[in-house]
Parts: sequence; structure tokens; C-alpha cells
Amino acid sequence: MPISLGELATRFGCELIGDPDSVVSSVASLPDATRESLTFLASNAYKEQLFSTKAAAVILRPADAADSPVPVLLHDDPYACYARMAAVVCPPAAFTPGIHASAVVDASATVAASAHLAPNVVVGERSTIGENVFVGPGTVIGPDCHVGDDCRFIANVTLARAVSIGRRGIFHPGVVLGADGFGNAMTPEGWVKVPQLGGVRIGNDVEIGANTTVDCGAIDDTIIEDGVRIDNLCMIAHNVHIGAHTAMAGMVGIAGSTTIGKRCLFAGQGGAVGHITICDDVIVGAKSFASKDITEPGTYLASFPAEPSRDWIKKVGRFRRIEALQERVKKLEKQ
Amino acid sequence: MPISLGELATRFGCELIGDPDSVVSSVASLPDATRESLTFLASNAYKEQLFSTKAAAVILRPADAADSPVPVLLHDDPYACYARMAAVVCPPAAFTPGIHASAVVDASATVAASAHLAPNVVVGERSTIGENVFVGPGTVIGPDCHVGDDCRFIANVTLARAVSIGRRGIFHPGVVLGADGFGNAMTPEGWVKVPQLGGVRIGNDVEIGANTTVDCGAIDDTIIEDGVRIDNLCMIAHNVHIGAHTAMAGMVGIAGSTTIGKRCLFAGQGGAVGHITICDDVIVGAKSFASKDITEPGTYLASFPAEPSRDWIKKVGRFRRIEALQERVKKLEKQ
Amino acid sequence: MPISLGELATRFGCELIGDPDSVVSSVASLPDATRESLTFLASNAYKEQLFSTKAAAVILRPADAADSPVPVLLHDDPYACYARMAAVVCPPAAFTPGIHASAVVDASATVAASAHLAPNVVVGERSTIGENVFVGPGTVIGPDCHVGDDCRFIANVTLARAVSIGRRGIFHPGVVLGADGFGNAMTPEGWVKVPQLGGVRIGNDVEIGANTTVDCGAIDDTIIEDGVRIDNLCMIAHNVHIGAHTAMAGMVGIAGSTTIGKRCLFAGQGGAVGHITICDDVIVGAKSFASKDITEPGTYLASFPAEPSRDWIKKVGRFRRIEALQERVKKLEKQ
Repeated sequence: MPISLGELATRFGCELIGDPDSVVSSVASLPDATRESLTFLASNAYKEQLFSTKAAAVILRPADAADSPVPVLLHDDPYACYARMAAVVCPPAAFTPGIHASAVVDASATVAASAHLAPNVVVGERSTIGENVFVGPGTVIGPDCHVGDDCRFIANVTLARAVSIGRRGIFHPGVVLGADGFGNAMTPEGWVKVPQLGGVRIGNDVEIGANTTVDCGAIDDTIIEDGVRIDNLCMIAHNVHIGAHTAMAGMVGIAGSTTIGKRCLFAGQGGAVGHITICDDVIVGAKSFASKDITEPGTYLASFPAEPSRDWIKKVGRFRRIEALQERVKKLEKQ
Repeated sequence: MPISLGELATRFGCELIGDPDSVVSSVASLPDATRESLTFLASNAYKEQLFSTKAAAVILRPADAADSPVPVLLHDDPYACYARMAAVVCPPAAFTPGIHASAVVDASATVAASAHLAPNVVVGERSTIGENVFVGPGTVIGPDCHVGDDCRFIANVTLARAVSIGRRGIFHPGVVLGADGFGNAMTPEGWVKVPQLGGVRIGNDVEIGANTTVDCGAIDDTIIEDGVRIDNLCMIAHNVHIGAHTAMAGMVGIAGSTTIGKRCLFAGQGGAVGHITICDDVIVGAKSFASKDITEPGTYLASFPAEPSRDWIKKVGRFRRIEALQERVKKLEKQ
Repeated sequence: MPISLGELATRFGCELIGDPDSVVSSVASLPDATRESLTFLASNAYKEQLFSTKAAAVILRPADAADSPVPVLLHDDPYACYARMAAVVCPPAAFTPGIHASAVVDASATVAASAHLAPNVVVGERSTIGENVFVGPGTVIGPDCHVGDDCRFIANVTLARAVSIGRRGIFHPGVVLGADGFGNAMTPEGWVKVPQLGGVRIGNDVEIGANTTVDCGAIDDTIIEDGVRIDNLCMIAHNVHIGAHTAMAGMVGIAGSTTIGKRCLFAGQGGAVGHITICDDVIVGAKSFASKDITEPGTYLASFPAEPSRDWIKKVGRFRRIEALQERVKKLEKQ
């Protein structure tokens, strides 16, 4: 949506150095930007690219303003400012309210008139869909689900049953919410399934990435608080509780009944075992997993970065013989 | 489904201490239980909660009976007993037999009259669907698949082709069975696909979690025996063979042609490399992977739990210098 | 498709020792092969099985020819030769061109007359589908996608938006292409979504496994070059660039903006952190992750294979006390 630099500056509280009537209609990186593009400089790593940019305007910190060959929008956090402006310049595709002829909505369900149900959507018994909700093609919303206003389900999302979602949630393709948790009791005759009877409760402003799963609780609910961001292919097991504004990168797994605080960060392929409590403001590193309660904010790690195999194999060999080394030292000490 | 304590006791072989005509109609945790709820005490960790529960009845071990303020059902394995009783008190939603108007069933397929095909289900050439099978919305059952009686496909499950399933299987949303295995031959012109021509054979009473994939075999079949339980986002590669009653937690990966014994357990994010054999009764720990044949039952590990980053980084540094330490010890020994 | 040994030999440049009019109509492993089956011997590990095979013919290296009790097709790379011949003997199921009545194609989309759109397929605004493309049931192709000739989408695949694919691609069930990358800016009010506006560009002859996700770029595109092979449940984050003929086994994760060279191999559950560059011909081992630029071809590792827990726990204990050992050695040195 074309918009003038003046309006952007006013709306997002920036100082503009440049013509307020100049219009941007797209966003771009510094090197690819054209005279219609808005761009940004958030890291010194890209400073070099600033000098030759052809953008309509660059969002940057006041300290970088003098180095820009083009108009600038000054902001102390150029990345966050870019995020907000980009959502105005390039908004998500608009949709028309209404239910596609191929969608199947149970007679006991309620769908707001302003919601959009795409082809092949299914809405189950007693479920409710709020205002301005976009339900993309192939999405299945099972029984007893409640979807707040302004949520978006891109396509082929599944809510198995008993999932309640607040406002403005975004759920990417392949997301599965409310499937049964992994509850099994061992008996002499083999595993007996433990019925998974809880639901999933998701707050406002939550975004969940493609093919991530969030299981229903065994008896009580699995809970995801406001503002949580979960990337692709993550697994949130039954009865996990994730605090507000916590973020998880791709392929993170949180085992059952674990409670995670607010504003935590999990890097890719990390995770936590079940039945532990992690306090607010904890960072768990890539490929690392928390194995017990964490009560102090800070960064926690347990992974080795890859190195040339000949070096690594030697180290692993020595690690395996660390006991022998210890014995040798003990012997030396005795002498 | 409301049921009397007397009937529960008779049906599941418990001793009841309390009024046999008292009725339960829901399940709950010890603290949340009301006068209509059945609950259980399986671990001493929750003993404290027993003293103040308001449940209609508590399933517990005989030794705990005296501590209960409410009626009890005595069983040596309260968790397994709870699992079975909960399935009676809170059974899965009933369904009506029949094929939804939007389902597309190939003329050569056979669907039992007692089966339920939900909206947008597709059944391919020559496939057969047994009695009382529930096929949830959006599920695609490709050609040459055979589904035994009483199976349930919750929603958006995909059977690519040539998948045979026994009775009472449960398949959660996003499960993919029978997709091509990863077979590629390197040539000077690049990878050449190796056609994946085998199928998948799944026994009775198997449950597979959301977004898990089980590939078809390259020539012979991939096999999952009776009673296996697989959690979400696991990957079972082509020609894997999983023994009866083995269980895998979330995000476990088993590479091609590996054979796993009976009653094994894989914890979260664990796995096994390809072309190995693991005997019965093996436990592989969280984030650990088996890299060669395992011939002795027992627990196998290879993971480090996360610790504060300053400690971990020091240890990794020392690990990297372990060779120098060894040299220093050697030098000392020579002196 | 039945075919004579003579025709196979001619078509794939093999020397045939045996009757050229003998016909094969299936493929099988050495032990299961019957008089109508084609089989192969590619590894000495299976040499024993050659002696008793009943196959119509065995593809093998010239050096093994004398040991075969049945006709042979001589090739220096029997596995690649088998791959190509198997695709002729057992071709993918044929399909008929046309759009199923239940498919929903936007008026602005273009679908080649030779393409097959299965039940419940959805094709969005401005998208184009090339010649002989197979779009399996439940597949959603969002707006602004371009699919080259001869691609196959098995079932329930999702292209969110702005995905361009070359020719002959194969996409297995549950694949999600073009979903939003994980872009979030932290602010005092919580995370602000960074609009993900780039697309995904995929070359020719790319195959992507079940439930793998490839995110769209933030501003520029995510790129997968010709001949890349990606297994199940992998995650390719926004703005990753994967070079031609690179292959990734199951559950590999590549974080955002990382560039990977040509002909690289990633073993299962491996990966790479974001914003790094990996040169051509790099192998990253199972469960290992690259944490910084790799500029030398070769194999890189960072994982420990599982071992009996009593041994592992001891080693981890010693690892944790490695500092004390170092101190003891230092003390000894001083003496």
C-alpha cells in the first residue's frame, strides 16, 4: 500500500529527514532497494551497503543518519520500526468475508459473519469462530474449539478438539493443536492408552510455525500465554505451560508437564525434559536441553559445535579414556 | 458416561471402599476433583494432594487407602487402572456410520458400512476400510491401503500408498504413512531417485502421534509390530522394523533398515543410525542416538544436560585442550 | 511394466550375459527375487545372497559376474543402474489429465490441460501449473505460485504463497513451502512480527520429504538449487540458500540466512546455525551442527554415540571434573 514518508514518520514516531510527500510502495534490502522502496539499517554488519543504497528512505539510528545518501527515518530500534512499517506498506492479502460453498460447518458451530472460510474448511460441533478470522483452505477445526477475533489459519491447519485461542493468532500450514498427548500406562498386556481429556488454551498474539504440534492436556489444559512465538516443527507436549513472550526456534521439543517462564528463548533443536520448571528470562542454546529446574535467569548450554572429523574423533577417543588419564595422574601424585 | 463405583470395581477387579451406588461422570486431578469426579494417586509425589481431595473416589494402592478422605478403589497399578476406567467414564466421541457427501471414494475401494468417512476424505484405488473405522476430515487414504477394524484417523492424516494397518490403530493429525523413503544414488549427473516400491505394515493397537512420518520400504516393507506407541514428529525411515510394544517419545528419528526389538523405549529427540540391530528391552536416552548394534538390554546414553553457559564454555574449552593435558601427564611420567 | 533384458541392456548401456528375450516385470531383493524379478548386488555385504538368488537377472559389477547363478547385467555402478531400471520396470502410477470436480481453481490461475488436479485441491490467485503436473488430494497451492512441468505433489502438500518450482520436482505429503519465516523484533511491548515478504525458489529435479518445511524469505527469496534432495521433517529457514545436489537426511535443520554449497551432505538430526556459509562438498555428521563458516571440504562432526548409561554417566562426571584434573596436573608440574 503506497504511503508517504511523512505519514510513516507521524504514525510511528520517527524523525524524517527528507521530503514528507515522497511515497514508498515496497520494502527491500539496502542493495536491492529502488526509489519506491523502504529499507532499514539495524546492524553495523551492513553499514557498507548503506553508502550506495537507492532506497526512497532508510530507517536507521540517529548516529547513522549522516552516512545515508537518501532520506532517512530516525528510530532507536530500526528493526522493530521496520517491522511495523512493513506491515503497513505490505499488509497481508485482504480477504472477503464468507463461507466457501465447499466448507462444512456443523449446525451447532458459530461463525462470525466477518470471518472467511476457504475451500474445504471443516468446523466441528459447538465450535466458535470470531470476527475477521481467516481460515485457509483445508483447515480442520474440530469440536469444542473457540477462535478469537482476527486469527489467521493459513492452510491445512488442524485443531483436533477443545482448543481455545485468543485474538490475533497466526497459525501456519501443518500446525496441529489439541492432538492427544503421549500418555500410556505399561501393563503385562502391553501399553494401555491413558485418555487425553484436557484441552489447549492459547493467549493473544501467539504465532505458531509450520508443522509444529501442541498436544492437549491429559486432564488439565496445555497452556500458551500471550505473545508466545514458536517456529516450525516444534513439539509442545501435554500439560506444558509456556509463559508470555517466550520464543522457540525451529525443532524445539518441550516434554510433558514442564512449565516455562516468561521471555525465555530456546534456540534451534533445543528443548526441555518433562516435569521441570524453568524461570523467566532463561535462554537455552542450540541443540541443548534443560534436564532439571532452572531457577536463575541466564544462558544454558550443552552442545558442541561441529569440527573436522579427524579432530573430533581424537577428542572423543580421549574423552573415552579420560578415566585412564585420571588414574595416571593419581599414580603420579602418589609418587 | 456416568457409571457407579460398584460397576467400575466389578469391571476392573478393584476392591471398593465406599458406596457402590455413588456415581462418577468425569475425571480430574486430585486437587480439582469434585463430587462427581474419579481421580487417582499413582505417585508419592502427589500424596499431599490426597488429604484434601473432594473426589467421588480415588484409585490408589491398598497402602494409601487409610489416608483418603473419600471413597477409594484399590488397585496395585492405579495409573493403568485409571487409564482403563477413564476410557469408560470419558469415551472418545461417538460417530455415526456413513460417508459424507464431500468424501471421494474410488469405485474400486471397499468401505465397511459401519465406517465413518468425514468431509473431504479421499480413498484411493483398491483400498479397503474395515468395520467401525473413523476417518476424520481431510484424511487421504491413497491406493492399495488396508485399514483394519476400529481404527481412528483423527483428521488430515495421509496414507500415501500400500499401507496395511491392523485393528484399533489411532493416527493423529498430520501423520504421513507410506511416503517414499530417502533412496538416492549418486551419479556424475547428480542424484538418481531409487524408486521406493515397498509398503508399510502396521500391527494391531498401534498409536502414532501428530506429524510423525513412516516411510514405505525401498523393496520390502517397513514394519511396525503390535502395540507400538510413537509420539509426535518422529521419523521412521524406509525398511525400519520396530518390535512389539516399543515406545518412542517426541522427535525420535530411526534411520533406514534399522531393526529395533520389543519393549524398547526411546526418549525425546533420540534415535538410531541406519542398518543396525537393537535387541529387546533397550532404553535410549533423551537426545542420544545408537550408532551400532546393541545386543544387551539396558539403558544407553550420549547426551549432556544444559548448564550455565560460562561453566559449559569452560568445559568445552578444556575438552578441546584435553590432548595438551595428556601430553603434560606424559611428560610428568617421563620425569 | 514388463521389459526384456535385451532392451534394458541397450537402454542403459549394460553388457548382458543371458537371454535378451527373457522378460522382467518386477524388482526384488536378492533373496526374494523370482524368475520375473530384476535385482542387484551393489555391496559385498550381500555377496552371500547372490549365490542362491532365483532372479531373472542381477545387475552387478563385472568382477562379480562369475559368481551369479542367473543372467547378469554388467554395470560399474549397479545401484545407480538399478535405480534407473527400476523406474522403467515399476514406474509411478499413471494419471489422467483433468481437474476433479471438487478442486477449486481461482479464475486468475492457469492449469495446463495435461495436469491432474485430484479431489479437494485448491489453486490460488495468479498461480500457474505446468504440463503433466500431478497435484494429489488435499494439496493447497496458494497465490502467486509457479509449478514447472512434470512436478508431483503426492497429497496434502501446502504451498503457502510465492513459491516457484522448476521441472520434475517431487513433494511428499505434509510438505509446507513458503510459510512465513521466524522473524520477530523484540520491543518493550513484546514481539513484533516482521512481515515475511520474500518467496521460495526451487530448481529442477528437487525432491522434498514428508512434513519438511521450507520458509519464504524475509525480503529476498529462500533458494534451493537443482537436484537437491531433502528427507522428511527437515526445516529450511528463511533466506537459506542450498547449492545444487546437496542432500539432507531426516530431521536436519538449517537456520536463517545460511548458505550451503553444492554436493554437501547432512546426516540425520544435524544442522547449521544461521548466517553462516558452508562451502561445497562438506559432510556434516549425524546430530552434529555447523556453528561457523566452513571453508574446507571434508567431514565435520560433533556428536557422541550412545553407550551404556553407567559408562556414560561416569564419563560425564569426569568431564565435569576435568578442571580439577587440570589443577592436579598443574600442581604436579610445579613440584
